[in-house]
Amino acid sequence: MLKIGIIGYGYWGPNLLRNFYAVNDCKVESVADFRQERLSLVQKNYPNVKITTNPDDILLSTEIDAVVIATPVHTHFELAKKALENGKHVLIEKPFTSSSAQAVELMNIAEKKGLLVMVDHTFLYTGAVQKMKNLIKDGGIGKLQYLDSTRINLGLFQPDVNVLWDLAPHDISVLNFLNNETPLSINATGISHTQNNIENIAYMTVNYPSGFIAHFNCSWSSPVKIRMMLIGGDKKMIVYNDMEPTEKVKIYETGYNVRNDEEKRNIMVDYRVGDIYVPKVATNEALSLMSADFVNSIRNKKQPLADAQIALNVVKILEAAELSIKNKGKEIKL
Amino acid sequence: MLKIGIIGYGYWGPNLLRNFYAVNDCKVESVADFRQERLSLVQKNYPNVKITTNPDDILLSTEIDAVVIATPVHTHFELAKKALENGKHVLIEKPFTSSSAQAVELMNIAEKKGLLVMVDHTFLYTGAVQKMKNLIKDGGIGKLQYLDSTRINLGLFQPDVNVLWDLAPHDISVLNFLNNETPLSINATGISHTQNNIENIAYMTVNYPSGFIAHFNCSWSSPVKIRMMLIGGDKKMIVYNDMEPTEKVKIYETGYNVRNDEEKRNIMVDYRVGDIYVPKVATNEALSLMSADFVNSIRNKKQPLADAQIALNVVKILEAAELSIKNKGKEIKL
Amino acid sequence: MLKIGIIGYGYWGPNLLRNFYAVNDCKVESVADFRQERLSLVQKNYPNVKITTNPDDILLSTEIDAVVIATPVHTHFELAKKALENGKHVLIEKPFTSSSAQAVELMNIAEKKGLLVMVDHTFLYTGAVQKMKNLIKDGGIGKLQYLDSTRINLGLFQPDVNVLWDLAPHDISVLNFLNNETPLSINATGISHTQNNIENIAYMTVNYPSGFIAHFNCSWSSPVKIRMMLIGGDKKMIVYNDMEPTEKVKIYETGYNVRNDEEKRNIMVDYRVGDIYVPKVATNEALSLMSADFVNSIRNKKQPLADAQIALNVVKILEAAELSIKNKGKEIKL
Amino acid sequence: MLKIGIIGYGYWGPNLLRNFYAVNDCKVESVADFRQERLSLVQKNYPNVKITTNPDDILLSTEIDAVVIATPVHTHFELAKKALENGKHVLIEKPFTSSSAQAVELMNIAEKKGLLVMVDHTFLYTGAVQKMKNLIKDGGIGKLQYLDSTRINLGLFQPDVNVLWDLAPHDISVLNFLNNETPLSINATGISHTQNNIENIAYMTVNYPSGFIAHFNCSWSSPVKIRMMLIGGDKKMIVYNDMEPTEKVKIYETGYNVRNDEEKRNIMVDYRVGDIYVPKVATNEALSLMSADFVNSIRNKKQPLADAQIALNVVKILEAAELSIKNKGKEIKL
Repeated sequence: MLKIGIIGYGYWGPNLLRNFYAVNDCKVESVADFRQERLSLVQKNYPNVKITTNPDDILLSTEIDAVVIATPVHTHFELAKKALENGKHVLIEKPFTSSSAQAVELMNIAEKKGLLVMVDHTFLYTGAVQKMKNLIKDGGIGKLQYLDSTRINLGLFQPDVNVLWDLAPHDISVLNFLNNETPLSINATGISHTQNNIENIAYMTVNYPSGFIAHFNCSWSSPVKIRMMLIGGDKKMIVYNDMEPTEKVKIYETGYNVRNDEEKRNIMVDYRVGDIYVPKVATNEALSLMSADFVNSIRNKKQPLADAQIALNVVKILEAAELSIKNKGKEIKL
Repeated sequence: MLKIGIIGYGYWGPNLLRNFYAVNDCKVESVADFRQERLSLVQKNYPNVKITTNPDDILLSTEIDAVVIATPVHTHFELAKKALENGKHVLIEKPFTSSSAQAVELMNIAEKKGLLVMVDHTFLYTGAVQKMKNLIKDGGIGKLQYLDSTRINLGLFQPDVNVLWDLAPHDISVLNFLNNETPLSINATGISHTQNNIENIAYMTVNYPSGFIAHFNCSWSSPVKIRMMLIGGDKKMIVYNDMEPTEKVKIYETGYNVRNDEEKRNIMVDYRVGDIYVPKVATNEALSLMSADFVNSIRNKKQPLADAQIALNVVKILEAAELSIKNKGKEIKL
Repeated sequence: MLKIGIIGYGYWGPNLLRNFYAVNDCKVESVADFRQERLSLVQKNYPNVKITTNPDDILLSTEIDAVVIATPVHTHFELAKKALENGKHVLIEKPFTSSSAQAVELMNIAEKKGLLVMVDHTFLYTGAVQKMKNLIKDGGIGKLQYLDSTRINLGLFQPDVNVLWDLAPHDISVLNFLNNETPLSINATGISHTQNNIENIAYMTVNYPSGFIAHFNCSWSSPVKIRMMLIGGDKKMIVYNDMEPTEKVKIYETGYNVRNDEEKRNIMVDYRVGDIYVPKVATNEALSLMSADFVNSIRNKKQPLADAQIALNVVKILEAAELSIKNKGKEIKL
Repeated sequence: MLKIGIIGYGYWGPNLLRNFYAVNDCKVESVADFRQERLSLVQKNYPNVKITTNPDDILLSTEIDAVVIATPVHTHFELAKKALENGKHVLIEKPFTSSSAQAVELMNIAEKKGLLVMVDHTFLYTGAVQKMKNLIKDGGIGKLQYLDSTRINLGLFQPDVNVLWDLAPHDISVLNFLNNETPLSINATGISHTQNNIENIAYMTVNYPSGFIAHFNCSWSSPVKIRMMLIGGDKKMIVYNDMEPTEKVKIYETGYNVRNDEEKRNIMVDYRVGDIYVPKVATNEALSLMSADFVNSIRNKKQPLADAQIALNVVKILEAAELSIKNKGKEIKL
């Protein structure tokens, strides 16, 4: 029976508690939050779970095997480091850390101690992303050419991180999961409409050596909520619309043929539009699969799907994007 | 009776002919195209209109008052210059010219000769754009904060200009029409998936001194056709979806309030969602209004809605974007 | 503190328990279900609530003030009657009863005993329906002319009641709530694609003396899920699309003018299309408001929003529809 | 060269003229309309086509081989009869005639004289309907169980025929084309919101011996335009949405299995949701294919796709529906 402590019971904490509570061979021992009113909620709904305002009651506990950290990003590193140093496996809410150096340090400690450090990139466990991964792996999409992601809504402006750190981790993790190629560089632009100089709108391009390109449009200032990703291969293209209740993934038999017309010395491209295929995707709750993967990976000493490497690469890209914005869109090599 | 000659009867030419044919106090005298099969179409449907394979029959004709140029971009400058020098008013298909220097030269000749040079930025004449212009002018949207445009589809790859020159002129003209502020600089990124190194996917950010930001996502490689523009003001926001048959413009009573919470030394932003209002927009064919505006502007020596200055500014932005792409996304000052 | 017992913990029971659990001045004492595995769920999530397989433990209990009945329709009457006769207020899951005679009998007992009998027509408590009610009451829609409802999906075929009894109660309750006029008669048609002769597709027209007409399209055999209601007035029209996440209610300034053209001795109607207005609607959980209304109506001896009369009228319409189907669509007077 | 005369140049006439003008081996000789202003339009756009205000100039002409009748329904019979009696093939705008007796009489004359009488049921020539026909013929949909059609919009109220005669012919022709079974009877209801007692909203059920059922919802009083047809088979189901620009036909791998559970003595049905397939459908203009089919059927003495029998069956259903409405929804045997 793996014993788990959860630190942070804000927006996402209740979802983590509910899901880990339901995982077999695992018991949520304790929840920590510095807000008493949040802990009352735990007590009301889960009378068997201990509560505390002191995270050390979890981090230093000899009863707890694994710690789930769902606190603001800037606290991830210190909490996770202490947990690992005290021999505990760690699951961290995305994004991993505030910098790639911190992420690497945590990964090093974990490796040295034989512990698991994993990041909750929930989207990798969705039926939609799994379906796309399989389609790409099986070659049906062809050579990947681009990924174009839009994640915009009227959001709560975060006081400590910009809109890319807030919204893009989902989509960057999907990018890293679907495309194994190592990116070359980042360009990003953005704007802050508040006094604190934290961007509420930002755009990012990720450049790759092969000619693949990825683009991310993130905003807290959109009147409409859009979660859409286009993925183009040289055989087929995918539209992944996460706002669709059932038709989330559509595959378009839609390509183009490049024709070389010597006489006119220019390249003409035919376009054609074919059938569309909308596969059924599994509708299990992704967070439940992620929770189980964390527990199973510890028990069976296996690598989880959402491993630390993918999470580190997400942080690297976010870090570079922030630097690019501060340097007026300049290309930042990775 | 204003006598008009049309040069170029390819994709857009038939629309221009049909619309000018219907304008009062104006007569289409002649159509030129080097392809005989295109001219046969003119002859079949408009037996009264003369045809020729030699553009000089129009450019040098003493019977013709105004020339409409609907040929590939790289030919615009030479044709328009010759027309102006021969005392003819000129309407040019968008984009204006291949460079801003060419556009300025044409504008100078026109001014010297007292002739009109105008560019067919049709979108400015649509009911949707007119409605948005009025809403913004009346102050209902508040201080403009951003414009975010997506114009993507599975398009015919152009052999001579990249996707920005092909698709973005529409949206940049709308930007210039709705927002009078002079932009500061451009960042752009893109990729070519063909051998000719002409970008089929490109992203552009236009930076402004006031903190307004504009972004353009253009692609010939999207499986779905999207024509959407979000425009954010500090009072209301607009979604302009040109694919909607009747509900093209939606106004969202959706804003946010910045709250300064001294204790926590951070900025919190409340978000709220209010009513949506979908105004009826005029459904007259925009091209018919543009054609009439060209004729009326000549007759009444007035400035047309889609004047050369807006068109020049479109070319300046495209020029800078191309330079930025070639310089790996570097900021290009305007 | 009003003490409540819930009988039936199937599909809807957990929602009722969760909501009554949260209502102030009310305590869920006990839940009854004949399935032990359902009761285990209660025990796991609500350790303080008693469980029993015998409904009499609730119906005859001297501790319980009010009974919530969430069992199959054919059991409603017996359970509710026993509850009322034992001095308990009753909330019944929709539809009220299997026949209007049963409903009337329950209403009579309740009146005699000074008890409340109410039916969970949850939709009346939604922000969307409340908004429409207010719009109609304020006269903004004009004289009502029609209501056209479609509620179709790929549903679980019910073994005991046809698709109208299963799906239409929602929409008929909305009809009765929005339009006070007493209907004249019913026509209905339908088909069963199973051996049990229970219709899985059915269509119903409700006729009114004023010329108002209501139509209902219900199906368990549709590949797509549609929940849409059109409501036409002689001033404006409403589209209520319950599948829309945020834009559920749209009001169209869209009417027509009847013109009497004597010469041609026929009636011509102009049509016009105006603005559309999408009001913000409250997003509180309707079931929570219904639960609170039940408790408040008992405590304050007031009439609830979803009163027994509306629920009785729903049953009358369903009863007549079933009779019409069995009589090949014949008009059944109410 | 087949010589054609067109009678009636109102709403649909220009489309017929444009399409027949483009058919090979066919020449539009003359157009008749009693309105001089309509004839001026012909003259302006087709200077080679003769015009006349007297239909007899076409009906009695020895130069004309075939007559296209695009006048109000109540005039179809007299015009078509005269054309046939004068040895001319006839194409009639839908619906065929005002009564099935008239249609039968025209068919008899045509047969006796060896002439073609055909009705312009354009929809049968669309890529979408052709695709559905093939899917059904190939057995992929399984045994047909229902067809549910909605065709509503804010329409011009017709002064002489009700909304079923105006809008339903399209969908009934599709029904007759897709399903060969002979219907048993009709139920219909409706309402008129004008003084002339002509229904502007109507609902119709078509009953079949096999258990197949078809339902039609037609309205001139809807604020939104909907053209949707659901077709259910026991293997797959089709959604045909004619308002979709490209994804008009969707096939759902969505069925249900009837399970016989002896113990509970009731029928349970599992539902399952599978993949969706959106085939590419041909986008040729249907009217052009219909025009060519008319000409080819005359030249090659073959039966056209949209033959008189389908058109007669459409009229029979409309006739019965009108009778049912006038008899308060009573079942009318066909």
